[in-house]
Amino acid sequence: MKTDRNPINDEIAPAVDAIVKSIHDEPRLQHLNRVNLPDREQIVLAIDLLRQLVFPGYFGKRDLTSANLPEHVTSVVARLNEVLYDQVRCCLRYRENIATDQRSGRCAECDDSAREIVRQFMTRIPSVRALLASDVQAAFDGDPAAINTDETIFSYPGLMAITVQRLAHEFYRLQVPLLPRIMTEWAHGRTGIDIHPGATLGSGLMIDHGTGVVVGETTVIGDNVKIYQGVTLGALAPAFGQLLRGQKRHPTIEDEVTIYAGATILGGETVIGKGTVIGGNLFITASIPAMHVVTTEPPKLHMRQRGKRRREARASTHDPLDFVI
Amino acid sequence: MKTDRNPINDEIAPAVDAIVKSIHDEPRLQHLNRVNLPDREQIVLAIDLLRQLVFPGYFGKRDLTSANLPEHVTSVVARLNEVLYDQVRCCLRYRENIATDQRSGRCAECDDSAREIVRQFMTRIPSVRALLASDVQAAFDGDPAAINTDETIFSYPGLMAITVQRLAHEFYRLQVPLLPRIMTEWAHGRTGIDIHPGATLGSGLMIDHGTGVVVGETTVIGDNVKIYQGVTLGALAPAFGQLLRGQKRHPTIEDEVTIYAGATILGGETVIGKGTVIGGNLFITASIPAMHVVTTEPPKLHMRQRGKRRREARASTHDPLDFVI
Amino acid sequence: MKTDRNPINDEIAPAVDAIVKSIHDEPRLQHLNRVNLPDREQIVLAIDLLRQLVFPGYFGKRDLTSANLPEHVTSVVARLNEVLYDQVRCCLRYRENIATDQRSGRCAECDDSAREIVRQFMTRIPSVRALLASDVQAAFDGDPAAINTDETIFSYPGLMAITVQRLAHEFYRLQVPLLPRIMTEWAHGRTGIDIHPGATLGSGLMIDHGTGVVVGETTVIGDNVKIYQGVTLGALAPAFGQLLRGQKRHPTIEDEVTIYAGATILGGETVIGKGTVIGGNLFITASIPAMHVVTTEPPKLHMRQRGKRRREARASTHDPLDFVI
Repeated sequence: MKTDRNPINDEIAPAVDAIVKSIHDEPRLQHLNRVNLPDREQIVLAIDLLRQLVFPGYFGKRDLTSANLPEHVTSVVARLNEVLYDQVRCCLRYRENIATDQRSGRCAECDDSAREIVRQFMTRIPSVRALLASDVQAAFDGDPAAINTDETIFSYPGLMAITVQRLAHEFYRLQVPLLPRIMTEWAHGRTGIDIHPGATLGSGLMIDHGTGVVVGETTVIGDNVKIYQGVTLGALAPAFGQLLRGQKRHPTIEDEVTIYAGATILGGETVIGKGTVIGGNLFITASIPAMHVVTTEPPKLHMRQRGKRRREARASTHDPLDFVI
Repeated sequence: MKTDRNPINDEIAPAVDAIVKSIHDEPRLQHLNRVNLPDREQIVLAIDLLRQLVFPGYFGKRDLTSANLPEHVTSVVARLNEVLYDQVRCCLRYRENIATDQRSGRCAECDDSAREIVRQFMTRIPSVRALLASDVQAAFDGDPAAINTDETIFSYPGLMAITVQRLAHEFYRLQVPLLPRIMTEWAHGRTGIDIHPGATLGSGLMIDHGTGVVVGETTVIGDNVKIYQGVTLGALAPAFGQLLRGQKRHPTIEDEVTIYAGATILGGETVIGKGTVIGGNLFITASIPAMHVVTTEPPKLHMRQRGKRRREARASTHDPLDFVI
Repeated sequence: MKTDRNPINDEIAPAVDAIVKSIHDEPRLQHLNRVNLPDREQIVLAIDLLRQLVFPGYFGKRDLTSANLPEHVTSVVARLNEVLYDQVRCCLRYRENIATDQRSGRCAECDDSAREIVRQFMTRIPSVRALLASDVQAAFDGDPAAINTDETIFSYPGLMAITVQRLAHEFYRLQVPLLPRIMTEWAHGRTGIDIHPGATLGSGLMIDHGTGVVVGETTVIGDNVKIYQGVTLGALAPAFGQLLRGQKRHPTIEDEVTIYAGATILGGETVIGKGTVIGGNLFITASIPAMHVVTTEPPKLHMRQRGKRRREARASTHDPLDFVI
């Protein structure tokens, strides 16, 4: 024990020693002596700067005019360029280090690649904006509670989740590790909408309310699709998940499909045909042709007056009266 | 290209030019040359100040006593007054500018209206507090894991969502655009509970756990209602949502109703009668009389031992064995 | 009215007076003249410091090496010690004051207990880390979209919710009031995953996607259990919740069980046997033996071409065509 430890340090010394030992003993929970991982806070800053570029006048600087716009965009892009370059470089060095199993921080090639990736990403922002314009319109058209598209941009969680995913998807296509998922999981935490950065989303996508929506990595969604809260576009259960890596595991949803709240659609070979409507809470594991409405027999409801036969009913464990939380 | 551009700016110039062009080309995603929109961060600050007024001693300043309370309330109200006036004024000017299709920032009438709206809002805080006291009591009474009402105020997401909605609802009644929805969507993001500011909530409302709850704009909820996680009080599907604007699209829930987790109740003419209990996961699109318990036949469970007949079962796409995610 | 009031204060004086009166009139919503409650922001800071200790190099300081690790851990533990001591002391004084119905802030015994509780908590961090290592491995093994365990630590909401619950559970076991629930509700707000601090979680727990998961206070979960989004491990409905306080109200899930998305398992006597698989969206209120697969008859789907018989179908309120949101 060092002699210059202060009293408080002496008091906590046993805890510190045990924690340090536990960190050395368990390599899966520490990241020591290696290149830096990306910094989640910097990535959140990048998302914030990107939203300022994508929706100028809504987020970030106010009093924007045609006259001061170019200067504003220049300053945001310059800052974004710097932040993204640092983070993408971290991600590439990280992958390189894992691949080569070396732990030095050097990787000159990574730096060049990072610069090129960020440059390419920047050139894709206008096309991402064009897709988002179609999403904004779709969110407004589909929601009678929306007063205009401004409200949509300001407050709709579906649009926020889609915005972040569309941006993250570009990094996914550019094969940047870690970063895309950190972006979409940030949006998941903010909105309850979990869209994997690998998912392919068509134009004019609306996700209303959205809490509980899950869209898996290999999902393909066409144009003008509407999805409500609690919808899962997922994979059939794997015995051991890692065996399925890289396969198409999630469904294909064609253009103009509507999927109502709580529906679950599973499997990589499942295709929901163009224009089809999937009813609320349905469970679908096979393809559905185009231009159909899919529903199910509504479960027969049982009604009894309160206070009657309650005691007897409780005797049977499976009695529907107990089927409440 | 300007001669005083620095090197980094030259490097990013093509991206900047493309982004500026894309902003000019797509009016739906920008807000240029117009009056300022409200500022989401200032609205979040207002929510924070309001929580300090509504629950003094729990949030904000500590060491509150009867003696220092008036000074504290004065300082919070003064700050709140300023923040709300600015934001409400922005919202009113914004509406005025849309209505008159002019883009100048002037609207002296808006400023007077904003002052009057904020004044009226402030006078309603005590009655909102009275409703919240009934909610706090209901949350405690209904939850065996709650130790006392303090824990409820501190940590229950249901209470937080209800608090923000009750406050936002006052701005909704005062016909302020944008602001109420920004408030409730902030709470939605924090809690997973999406209550539209237009919904009318009775006293003693409990929302337990709450993730995934959706309560639509024209919902009317009576007194002492209990709602569990994943409940939707929604609209029947519109072919084109905007056609339904302004109609009563969401259900009416009378006093003392309990709605268990995952139940969905739809439609503007659907009324759940006083004292009725709606079982978990039910799907209801028609009215239910008072004092009934509504359940459904529990689906028959299939059980097989693991490892038996698995290969054969997989052959049929619709086999229940595959009905897992 | 005081003579030194400034003009703005005069203007808001009526609102202030009404709010002050409403605060005095409603004791359930104020915490005046009493010992301080814990400070939610300080507790969030403690969670942040704990994550730095549990996952060094992922969160907090970067450039960590074997050489600088002990100094870093010392500084984090020292800060954490201070923050936790203050908060735990607040919680204990608070309980003492309620128990004795006195309102003075003094409680020398509380301070000693707080110091001892924080000391014990610190010594448990290594064993919590060992459990979290098994969770990280489980999250990676079960998810084909995961590239390595680093991504899991960085971005998986399930792991974040489990991390916070395992730490909060230690304070729960040490019988600290308020603090554990504030911790888990913070994680609930971030992830949509609501695990009560009282729940007992085995090693190697995976919660995938996770939005909408609810795990009640007296739930017991064995080792290597997998849980998907929207799963509820809850209590059967109480007539009056507070009557059930302290009883085992939530199920027991044995080792190696998998519970697919949206399943609901209720009741304190319900046991899901070792190795059993519970299908998606099932509703279970009775025990299931070990090594079974439980599914249900898939509901028969109805399909019709769009545009056909729509008008007739609408005539019947209960027609499945209306069973959409």
